[in-house]
Amino acid sequence: MLKKYALNSGKNVKLSAFDPDDTDKFKNKEEIREKFEEMEEKLKELQDKLYASKTHSVLILFQGMDCSGKDGVVKKVLSNLNPQGFRAESFKKPSEDELSHDFLWRTHKVMPAKGYITAFNRSYYEDVLITRVHDTITDGEAAKRLKHIQHFEKLQADNGVLVIKIFLHISKSFQYEKLKERIANPEKHWKFDINDLQERKYWEKYVEAYEDVFTQTGKKSCPWYIVPADERWFRDFLVLKIIVSAMEQLNLEYPTIEIDVSEFS
Amino acid sequence: MLKKYALNSGKNVKLSAFDPDDTDKFKNKEEIREKFEEMEEKLKELQDKLYASKTHSVLILFQGMDCSGKDGVVKKVLSNLNPQGFRAESFKKPSEDELSHDFLWRTHKVMPAKGYITAFNRSYYEDVLITRVHDTITDGEAAKRLKHIQHFEKLQADNGVLVIKIFLHISKSFQYEKLKERIANPEKHWKFDINDLQERKYWEKYVEAYEDVFTQTGKKSCPWYIVPADERWFRDFLVLKIIVSAMEQLNLEYPTIEIDVSEFS
Repeated sequence: MLKKYALNSGKNVKLSAFDPDDTDKFKNKEEIREKFEEMEEKLKELQDKLYASKTHSVLILFQGMDCSGKDGVVKKVLSNLNPQGFRAESFKKPSEDELSHDFLWRTHKVMPAKGYITAFNRSYYEDVLITRVHDTITDGEAAKRLKHIQHFEKLQADNGVLVIKIFLHISKSFQYEKLKERIANPEKHWKFDINDLQERKYWEKYVEAYEDVFTQTGKKSCPWYIVPADERWFRDFLVLKIIVSAMEQLNLEYPTIEIDVSEFS
Repeated sequence: MLKKYALNSGKNVKLSAFDPDDTDKFKNKEEIREKFEEMEEKLKELQDKLYASKTHSVLILFQGMDCSGKDGVVKKVLSNLNPQGFRAESFKKPSEDELSHDFLWRTHKVMPAKGYITAFNRSYYEDVLITRVHDTITDGEAAKRLKHIQHFEKLQADNGVLVIKIFLHISKSFQYEKLKERIANPEKHWKFDINDLQERKYWEKYVEAYEDVFTQTGKKSCPWYIVPADERWFRDFLVLKIIVSAMEQLNLEYPTIEIDVSEFS
């Protein structure tokens, strides 16, 4: 099932080939409830083994247009994790100090240690997205950065870090509905930013920048997952499934001890 | 003059081709005193322009066997810098937290921001030296790390960081004399470590590991400098010359302002 959402070929990617409204074979939230709960338990167990064995780390990186649900998915899918071994990092507009270093500096600092899971709400990919859309870097600079990102992800892989890259894929009309909702609902006012409305003008440029990111950095060893996100229940279900499935491939095991405790009686 | 000390060809390097006792055309400290003082002034001016313009950063990285004078050169050559824009970082045995991240993590964190100079006493190169000599990593892992280092230095270059790599080259007999001095002189006891004597057994393995480092990472864009270091006055002189000369090539200028101050009278 996951295959159709994974980009790993290095071939030209067209986002229009992916339906933001897709829910695979499922019709509604009820149908997946049981599976979802099973996977939640599975994820907790995997986290526990990860923490105990300290052989690997996990980075889950979320990208997507405004309103695609990056905050929501962290809350819905990752809230059950043991906070002792989990951290959520959010990357806003870079500070002056961050801008005075290379673009990978601020993210490298907060990469997960062995045994830990970290979620990135936005990431170093912003440095080839928003910057490119607004022409603050040239295409040549973007190409260099994409190379640096590939090398950085290889460095992480060599160090036992599993990097899971998730793009939350929404339609432009879905975004419009969500922005209206943020204006209408007083509890969502704090999330509204007039810039989000203005950024809609650049939708197509964002799509192109994302397509280039997927084409250049979707590798077999580190695929991008395009998660249909217009239906939130399916979005959460698929994200959880991707994480559990990727972590299962690490074959995590509790470390064993060989000691004869009676010697200490 | 600097050319004969620079490694940038990618060709097989043999350290035995370099004389640790070399002092170029100079015979003693007196001969270079005036030049040294001139260059000290020049370096202060370059630092000031670097700090003012904030277009570049400078990393000066020192490697060398025990007793090669890494601490000494920082003290003698870099003490006159304005501490506002300069920092010295020293890398000892990695902590548990550092070991639980990729090998570039701890150094990347403390890379100089734009406008700043940082000196590394030891560096990420230790991760392909001491580890390799003591077989805690395989040759294959070392080869991967050397690639990661090349990519990292390219990332820095793309970000306007000048990386100056200096190897302080001493003879084995010089090291022995210095170790004896540390034992004989109560003011140097604190620098003595019994392990330094034991590490002498691995001298040849260190030489081989260094030669591989120079061959793989001595690039035209980022050469290694082999500084003869048995004569300390010449070592300091050459290091200062290398730094000044490399920074001069950045063509640093004070930023200009165009404002008619009479408007604010």
